[in-house]
Amino acid sequence: MIAEQTFTEQYFRVRKHSETICRGLETEDYVVQPIVDVSPPKWHLGHTTWFWETFVLIPNYPAYRPFHEDFSYVFNSYYETVGKRVLRTDRGNLSRPTVAGVYAYRAYVDEHMSRFLNTADVSPDLYALIELGLNHEQQHQELLITDIKYILGHNPLLPALKMPIIEHQRQASRPPVSIREGIYSIGYSPIVDSFHFDNELGRHKVYLNETVLSGNLVTNGDYLEFIEAGGYQNFRYWLSDGWAWVNTNAIQAPLYWYQIDGDWWNYTFDGLIPVDLAVPVCHVSQYEADAYARWRGTRLPTEFEWEIAAVDSAVESTVAGQLNWGARWEWTNSAYLPYPGFITAEGAVGEYNGKFMSAQLVLRGASVATPEGHSRPTYRNFFQPDKRWQYTGIRLVE
Amino acid sequence: MIAEQTFTEQYFRVRKHSETICRGLETEDYVVQPIVDVSPPKWHLGHTTWFWETFVLIPNYPAYRPFHEDFSYVFNSYYETVGKRVLRTDRGNLSRPTVAGVYAYRAYVDEHMSRFLNTADVSPDLYALIELGLNHEQQHQELLITDIKYILGHNPLLPALKMPIIEHQRQASRPPVSIREGIYSIGYSPIVDSFHFDNELGRHKVYLNETVLSGNLVTNGDYLEFIEAGGYQNFRYWLSDGWAWVNTNAIQAPLYWYQIDGDWWNYTFDGLIPVDLAVPVCHVSQYEADAYARWRGTRLPTEFEWEIAAVDSAVESTVAGQLNWGARWEWTNSAYLPYPGFITAEGAVGEYNGKFMSAQLVLRGASVATPEGHSRPTYRNFFQPDKRWQYTGIRLVE
Amino acid sequence: MIAEQTFTEQYFRVRKHSETICRGLETEDYVVQPIVDVSPPKWHLGHTTWFWETFVLIPNYPAYRPFHEDFSYVFNSYYETVGKRVLRTDRGNLSRPTVAGVYAYRAYVDEHMSRFLNTADVSPDLYALIELGLNHEQQHQELLITDIKYILGHNPLLPALKMPIIEHQRQASRPPVSIREGIYSIGYSPIVDSFHFDNELGRHKVYLNETVLSGNLVTNGDYLEFIEAGGYQNFRYWLSDGWAWVNTNAIQAPLYWYQIDGDWWNYTFDGLIPVDLAVPVCHVSQYEADAYARWRGTRLPTEFEWEIAAVDSAVESTVAGQLNWGARWEWTNSAYLPYPGFITAEGAVGEYNGKFMSAQLVLRGASVATPEGHSRPTYRNFFQPDKRWQYTGIRLVE
Amino acid sequence: MIAEQTFTEQYFRVRKHSETICRGLETEDYVVQPIVDVSPPKWHLGHTTWFWETFVLIPNYPAYRPFHEDFSYVFNSYYETVGKRVLRTDRGNLSRPTVAGVYAYRAYVDEHMSRFLNTADVSPDLYALIELGLNHEQQHQELLITDIKYILGHNPLLPALKMPIIEHQRQASRPPVSIREGIYSIGYSPIVDSFHFDNELGRHKVYLNETVLSGNLVTNGDYLEFIEAGGYQNFRYWLSDGWAWVNTNAIQAPLYWYQIDGDWWNYTFDGLIPVDLAVPVCHVSQYEADAYARWRGTRLPTEFEWEIAAVDSAVESTVAGQLNWGARWEWTNSAYLPYPGFITAEGAVGEYNGKFMSAQLVLRGASVATPEGHSRPTYRNFFQPDKRWQYTGIRLVE
Repeated sequence: MIAEQTFTEQYFRVRKHSETICRGLETEDYVVQPIVDVSPPKWHLGHTTWFWETFVLIPNYPAYRPFHEDFSYVFNSYYETVGKRVLRTDRGNLSRPTVAGVYAYRAYVDEHMSRFLNTADVSPDLYALIELGLNHEQQHQELLITDIKYILGHNPLLPALKMPIIEHQRQASRPPVSIREGIYSIGYSPIVDSFHFDNELGRHKVYLNETVLSGNLVTNGDYLEFIEAGGYQNFRYWLSDGWAWVNTNAIQAPLYWYQIDGDWWNYTFDGLIPVDLAVPVCHVSQYEADAYARWRGTRLPTEFEWEIAAVDSAVESTVAGQLNWGARWEWTNSAYLPYPGFITAEGAVGEYNGKFMSAQLVLRGASVATPEGHSRPTYRNFFQPDKRWQYTGIRLVE
Repeated sequence: MIAEQTFTEQYFRVRKHSETICRGLETEDYVVQPIVDVSPPKWHLGHTTWFWETFVLIPNYPAYRPFHEDFSYVFNSYYETVGKRVLRTDRGNLSRPTVAGVYAYRAYVDEHMSRFLNTADVSPDLYALIELGLNHEQQHQELLITDIKYILGHNPLLPALKMPIIEHQRQASRPPVSIREGIYSIGYSPIVDSFHFDNELGRHKVYLNETVLSGNLVTNGDYLEFIEAGGYQNFRYWLSDGWAWVNTNAIQAPLYWYQIDGDWWNYTFDGLIPVDLAVPVCHVSQYEADAYARWRGTRLPTEFEWEIAAVDSAVESTVAGQLNWGARWEWTNSAYLPYPGFITAEGAVGEYNGKFMSAQLVLRGASVATPEGHSRPTYRNFFQPDKRWQYTGIRLVE
Repeated sequence: MIAEQTFTEQYFRVRKHSETICRGLETEDYVVQPIVDVSPPKWHLGHTTWFWETFVLIPNYPAYRPFHEDFSYVFNSYYETVGKRVLRTDRGNLSRPTVAGVYAYRAYVDEHMSRFLNTADVSPDLYALIELGLNHEQQHQELLITDIKYILGHNPLLPALKMPIIEHQRQASRPPVSIREGIYSIGYSPIVDSFHFDNELGRHKVYLNETVLSGNLVTNGDYLEFIEAGGYQNFRYWLSDGWAWVNTNAIQAPLYWYQIDGDWWNYTFDGLIPVDLAVPVCHVSQYEADAYARWRGTRLPTEFEWEIAAVDSAVESTVAGQLNWGARWEWTNSAYLPYPGFITAEGAVGEYNGKFMSAQLVLRGASVATPEGHSRPTYRNFFQPDKRWQYTGIRLVE
Repeated sequence: MIAEQTFTEQYFRVRKHSETICRGLETEDYVVQPIVDVSPPKWHLGHTTWFWETFVLIPNYPAYRPFHEDFSYVFNSYYETVGKRVLRTDRGNLSRPTVAGVYAYRAYVDEHMSRFLNTADVSPDLYALIELGLNHEQQHQELLITDIKYILGHNPLLPALKMPIIEHQRQASRPPVSIREGIYSIGYSPIVDSFHFDNELGRHKVYLNETVLSGNLVTNGDYLEFIEAGGYQNFRYWLSDGWAWVNTNAIQAPLYWYQIDGDWWNYTFDGLIPVDLAVPVCHVSQYEADAYARWRGTRLPTEFEWEIAAVDSAVESTVAGQLNWGARWEWTNSAYLPYPGFITAEGAVGEYNGKFMSAQLVLRGASVATPEGHSRPTYRNFFQPDKRWQYTGIRLVE
């Protein structure tokens, strides 16, 4: 829980981190959008600022005047309740507002937020809204990192960049985690964590069979065995949609793997480096994670198994061991669906998570790109199964 | 369970029903494929025959000679283990083999199946294979009906056709079904049913919250209120993917509804008739079912709630009432995913169901087009959420 | 010119030929549309009939009642002035009207045309309209042949069919045709031919440089040298659009050529036969014709050079020799554009040719599939440069 | 003709003009590519530099070392002989090389060109190559202007920009130009102009009918009458391809016209201004030009008529008057095809113009965006008929 006296500090700490991520960028790197999933960095910087302007300052701070009449149009996201939006595919066509203009927008909003936070009588609703805004910005911080990586990693010059994360780190080996058959509780609990998104609410019981989850993530070396065994050429391991995806896109390895004269290389923020076999595999789709698991004769965990294996074993006496998570977002085989009793909140902020509950899979954990403090065992991340520009990895059921 | 003495009878009863469905067709109706989801009727007749030839006769009946060397190529489906297949989109381009040729193929295979069944020593494995073949053909019988309806219902002449089903029937009102909170068992049980598909296996426990399911399907009259309240124009009720689908395809009503001079009409096998408000709504997508439920302030059931509500209440004492199902396939809000312990069978027949476990939703029950004997409470039908050419309907949680 | 006493005979001779072309078809062959350029044979039979009904009978024969109210919708073509049309891509989805229904439509219209022609006082305008109708039907006769070939030639069974044309015939060698530099007249001349389409009108002078046209069409043997020299793999010979077409569609040989165990085969109405090197090459696109010419270090003729080389050398004393044409439609390097003074006729019939004067190339001559009497040196056929399902061939400038 | 003593001056004058065009741009404006036809300004600056490096310095100046090994890949255009190229659609995804990097590349190449030109013994071939390079860069200068206009004119902020052209200028009224029937010579003549592209070569005779070309370009006021008469809603005026283009793209006015509260506005480099009825219409496609002409009951000129009407009437005594051209590229109804005797030059530079001779129309004249000295009556510009981001206009035959 955020102590009230540090509220303004908290705000500025998060806001500053967005800019820290971008500090190594050239102006041009802020502008482009190579694929529809990736947003231009300046859009992330503007959009997160728009959130504060639109949801906090305009409704709550009478003295506030919007920075620019067109910015709500340019930096809107999916929030269909707040006016006409820029089509997502068009973001990469916009040279204006300039990067300098976006930083000016940030400074203007930050200054007014500072004034506002210093004077406001923070009601519980406003408190919740600000906490949501901070978490929203943290989500975009992870996207900033992954989108910048995509932009540079698809440039023919493959440039390196200073980035405040360590992508490539080996993991110490850990024992597996065993879950005994029985009833478990799933979802956000106010006793454990303070903040949560709406999709974690509705704590409820599930019945789990006995399961053992691997203590370790699948490594590049493990995954290379799948590649070398012809895994990408054999339809037997693949879901029907996954097999179509492999063939349509001529997929032969994880994203950012390049085979040069027989050797495998990885694009990273340090530039092109040899694949380190001991490091957890990264940038795989759920189709690849699922096919890999089938090839090994096993399966991905469900999001419920994962959550139970991740909580403190002191809490659940029927669980032996505890997952060591946080290096990679871990694909589960659970569809992203509402928990019992899920209700979409009223108003624009309420559009937040519910409407994406279709054709996406849940990822659990966090990654090396996740901002500090923005993770917990009940967090439900979600993407379509073909997406792999996030720091996604694989953990198997044993 | 099929009594052994009636095995040949059983075979011929199912085989004959496929042809009965087609008895009103003109030769030309057998040939076309207006959309990729719909297969030409002659393809269904050939493909089901190919199943018997490929999986039963060729491996088990040494005297058998294939009818035509190219038919395994033409009538293959998704079975990637059995050679190169005709691309699904191409089926509607094939004028040959002719309809008469397909019926000759059926007669040839039927004759050899008859000889074989009369002489074979039916092992349990063979027995299971034949039972699978019969159920496979029954699945295609339902598709035959829905595909023929699509072909005729998208012809400018909107022709009527004699079809052995009653599409339009009002349902007597029924009380709701209540499920008490607790642990329930889900999946195929040999005590209740004999046949099952692989995706029903892995009977396992789930924990359900207290739930009440409506005793009645949503009617055309109920649904018309949603249309008239502007349901198709308000993004608030829709999943993000659903809203894109509505707008891209300019959807304004269920499939086969036509508004003529202000009145709503339905295309049916009897031709164009006025919408009967008392009949259960039909031909809706899961997006529409979900949006309708949200508009009513409630939700669709999960497949587990549905299954428990459908079983005999004598079996589950914590369930009050029993669903009256079978008129419409009922969309659930459950993604089509494997049950615990699901294993894909070896070999071509094993490709059967598992590989579609991606981006599809479960439908439960059966419809007016489902062949007699081809339904049970544990049956898991599945389609992508935008599909609506099946006899799909809506039941709400109260 | 058509002698008046044989008017009815003429009508029935042309009408009968359309049906003669189809006499070997199975009902199913009439229905399908494998690509958008190809129309189902029953559509051709219906559309040509619709022409007589719409433009001759309804406006001129008061006693006439249309055969079916929806047929004008189903069998309309591009004539945007005559009501809403079936989208061209949808033709292959229509199982109804049936083939028998289309033949009944033909019989009904023929009977009324017979009555009408026997009683009508044929004005010059009506005479011209009927002559246009006969030529229109002849154009569709050639399309019937090429569309049927496409349907069967893309069926995995590659069926043979009895067809009243001889596709594969060697040509006797002929001397080249020389044109002396100077002024020539181009376009329809009433002295030479009776009938013409609107696009041939506007006889006008052009200035030609000295040119020599080959007396022979390029043969399969000639063309095979281009293939074996790597012509399809070298961008230097190709127009930019042509090179894109080759690569997008993986083109490696003319249409209907199949390489089996190193040997080249042709699909023809006699089924699959070995490529005869002495026969004129057929089913090539203008891109291929142009690339072949460049590879040979020469070019295709213009439509003006072709026309002058084709007319009787008695007429043009500055031309030595005369083209022997009629086996293949000969691609020119002339864009299909209006002659000086071209005027689009008023009314629906006037939509005839002018509006296609964009992005198409002129072909001159006729082919083995062209009906007798439907060719003349001033005839301007036209297709987009990537089309090759017509009987198209190549003649070079020497 | 370029005087030899001013050769280096000439080079630097042209090179400087490319940078002058860009002087008002923000860094971000250099990067984006909103549609495939438009290239990012930094790409134009790099590509024109690459031309000098690749075709002049590397083969002719032994002391030269390429600026960066990857730049030939990044800044290549269509020249398929010079290695693998960046797919055209990908240009807008490249944040690197940066704008500063591109300017450094220009400075580096310019410095070496200066050294080289000061020391080289300029052979006629080299002279021709440098002249080609200057004209090549001038072509890209016009594209720079039109691409920048597209980028800013499709930005929601519709920013103004300082640009060294005057877009909006009224034209004094001029008498028509009459051409008497007869033989005329077409194509580049060394007597009149020094430089030419390959597609102007092959001076040859054509026979023209008597024609009168309007002395004035069609104005916004003229064109508005077409809009208000429902020209965009009536298929009768349109080519078939044009009508499809209008409907697919919902075209209702020239590019950069916006209707706001009933009034028409133009986006220009001065921002949004009211449509000036007296100014020549601009940014129309050939489809629109052709439809407008038909609606007026006339036609567009051919490129031959235009060329004869544009040359000095002192030269052609059978021409009365002389065109006043240069404000707009004038669409003709001539397909872009080779002149008699056209030969594609050997080597990469030879790919220049010939391979685009397919499905494009000729434009004649020049526009307000054409660099000084880069126009002549025999110049053949060409674009597909749907393109309209160039400064295109309409002149009618009277």
